[in-house]
Amino acid sequence: MIGVVRGVYERYGFEPLETPAFENIDTLLGKYGEEGNKLIFKILKRGEHEGSGEADLALRYDLTVPLARVFAQYQNELPRFFKRYQIQPVWRADRPARGRFREFYQCDIDAIGSTSPTVEAEQIAAVGEVFNRLRFADFKIIVNHRGILTGLLDAAGIAREQHETALVALDKLDKIGEKGVETEFSARGIDPARASRLMAMLRNIFAGQEAAPGRDGVMVSLGRLQELGSVLGSTTSGPAVENLKQILSLIRAMPVAQHVYLDPRLARGLSYYTGAIMEVAVEGIGSLGGGGRYDNLIGMFLGRDVPACGFSLGLERIIVVMTERDMFPAAVAHGAVDVVVTFLDEGSRGDALQLATELRASALRADVFPEVARKFEKPLKYASARGAKLMAILGENERAKGEVSVRNLTTREQTALPRVGAASSIVGLARN
Amino acid sequence: MIGVVRGVYERYGFEPLETPAFENIDTLLGKYGEEGNKLIFKILKRGEHEGSGEADLALRYDLTVPLARVFAQYQNELPRFFKRYQIQPVWRADRPARGRFREFYQCDIDAIGSTSPTVEAEQIAAVGEVFNRLRFADFKIIVNHRGILTGLLDAAGIAREQHETALVALDKLDKIGEKGVETEFSARGIDPARASRLMAMLRNIFAGQEAAPGRDGVMVSLGRLQELGSVLGSTTSGPAVENLKQILSLIRAMPVAQHVYLDPRLARGLSYYTGAIMEVAVEGIGSLGGGGRYDNLIGMFLGRDVPACGFSLGLERIIVVMTERDMFPAAVAHGAVDVVVTFLDEGSRGDALQLATELRASALRADVFPEVARKFEKPLKYASARGAKLMAILGENERAKGEVSVRNLTTREQTALPRVGAASSIVGLARN
Repeated sequence: MIGVVRGVYERYGFEPLETPAFENIDTLLGKYGEEGNKLIFKILKRGEHEGSGEADLALRYDLTVPLARVFAQYQNELPRFFKRYQIQPVWRADRPARGRFREFYQCDIDAIGSTSPTVEAEQIAAVGEVFNRLRFADFKIIVNHRGILTGLLDAAGIAREQHETALVALDKLDKIGEKGVETEFSARGIDPARASRLMAMLRNIFAGQEAAPGRDGVMVSLGRLQELGSVLGSTTSGPAVENLKQILSLIRAMPVAQHVYLDPRLARGLSYYTGAIMEVAVEGIGSLGGGGRYDNLIGMFLGRDVPACGFSLGLERIIVVMTERDMFPAAVAHGAVDVVVTFLDEGSRGDALQLATELRASALRADVFPEVARKFEKPLKYASARGAKLMAILGENERAKGEVSVRNLTTREQTALPRVGAASSIVGLARN
Repeated sequence: MIGVVRGVYERYGFEPLETPAFENIDTLLGKYGEEGNKLIFKILKRGEHEGSGEADLALRYDLTVPLARVFAQYQNELPRFFKRYQIQPVWRADRPARGRFREFYQCDIDAIGSTSPTVEAEQIAAVGEVFNRLRFADFKIIVNHRGILTGLLDAAGIAREQHETALVALDKLDKIGEKGVETEFSARGIDPARASRLMAMLRNIFAGQEAAPGRDGVMVSLGRLQELGSVLGSTTSGPAVENLKQILSLIRAMPVAQHVYLDPRLARGLSYYTGAIMEVAVEGIGSLGGGGRYDNLIGMFLGRDVPACGFSLGLERIIVVMTERDMFPAAVAHGAVDVVVTFLDEGSRGDALQLATELRASALRADVFPEVARKFEKPLKYASARGAKLMAILGENERAKGEVSVRNLTTREQTALPRVGAASSIVGLARN
């Protein structure tokens, strides 16, 4: 799966980046809020200082702060626009639970240095291609814009200083429904009448705009944008609508277009987004990743704003969904080999290795049962544990006739092949 | 480079394994000697216990102890013979210096559960294929056997309880030469006459056995083994000579054979080897990795011996050598893209993205200069920073004529291609 992601991101011109597992502790502390500070794994100072309990290093907590550190350190050596992908584990000192790990992978793309809508369009296209290549048929890439949310909250009469808390509530719509969100609004001190007005606006915008099956997502979304523009028409939301229109127009002719939907309810909790926000979701599963434009964060170590936009995939979650849906080819699921070569007597040991060498040269994954197979059950059991499709057998009989026996482990059929040229016949059988 | 290694090891039937970055601290402490204990990175206990300075987790120090832990934990679910490869960073709380990192990759293959010489033969073949595919022409895989070393030391009259310290001295032969080793022997309390006898034996075994250029390494080595057998003929070295003879005979017909040399001076410091030992070395550079059979280690958490054999590559060292020798293709060295697409006016932005999509669908790595290129130098500079070979240009002119301009960034030649079908023409130019 990581291979697929990597391949797509490289074709889209993202450079691979890896950063060290630990950063100086001061680089990380204070970047993830108070809760985050507690969840950072801290490493004891080395050597004689160990006794003091002092920590000077800390484990990577996400991939964004290390990227900002790398950007600050190497900005003069980097291209004018820096596009990198990074797939590495991060660590959080949380209590482990179902679906919550202390070590998990993050998989981020980020483009630094441009405010151009080309950036968002490319990232949406790249993420779409990842999900296409992983053979998800039913994914949606939902887009929205911080400026549209601001415009909606303004229009509902919710004060600016309450926007952040309101967005945290709205972000839960998926999980707790409209009623739940209204309760949450009131708990957060937002006037109920204004909250209801907001929810009504969100409902009405969609009237008659539901995506008909098979209808192109981008075309639906451009329609919705038109509507939003006329409903809001504010100075805040105007440029936001215009920006999203540009982004969506750019991807109109791309294969990803049918998967892209504007949803003005998409909030994404993180307060650091400044422009377009996006999320990839699968029916009945929810979010498998998300991102957006965040122009005020990457420059944190430089003391100035640096435009940036990124998209992060939840690898573990994607793997869980693909496993549940049985989307991995069997050979991948088991780290399988194609063929196990078995020899029945000491005299065939060398030829077994020789045959394996020929199979490997033909790009098959071949294993050799390493010991003389006096009882046939042992290599059979081993081959099945390795997920092999075929077993190639060499013994006195085979050698006398200049043959190799090949057993299909699914059908249990066994055939004899001439030893000369056996490798290419076995490749044919394995790929069948 | 890791991709090449991974591909070879998978064809040889090794399963990928990754283990978490940290283990419980008790799993690691005491496994690497006193010096090792100090060099283990220790992680502070989470939450309120942080203040006490207590550590409960520690960062992976090598890949062998985690393998033994995994084997103990999952032995009933693993195949009868467990072959895994693992390529992950390890951490050592050492003072960083030139060529000494606090974080570096280890790249190990290990086969657990069999004492068969097939295991060693396969690992030697796999490592040989790795170096062949990385295009090293001059590598040697040097083999020896703990039993042969014991036989030689016995024959020189060095007492068994001095063997370990003698091997540590002998292991430095490469670096400090014969004179240096003799000094080292005497510093370690080994009788000078016996030390001289040992060195003389090692010299004499080689008389007339030097590898002629182009001579097959395994054939030379089998000759040396014959000689060793008659010189030593002890009960210790007999089975060792027999075992190596089997291993070398098995690889005689493999492509790796020409690279394999027996060298009875190869000691490899680690005291845990119990059988064959091997090392991959490059002329003028020295060791790039090594391994051998170690039947008493993998069972450490089970309280019983479990046969095992492994080979570890020094990734960073290999990368340094390949970089010095300029062995990486240019495109790999720079994480380069093939083409940068540039648009000269707002109206061409969409078509630029469209062209990039077509190029990516043809498996090219394509990047889009994200902003309207009013000055041509900027995208040119960017394309050069990205290591691109071609730049595709779309502007008003091109659109009017239904063309795309393509500039070869090496020759600076620029040609106009029909826009329809441009992607496949550009693929041709990029691959040329």
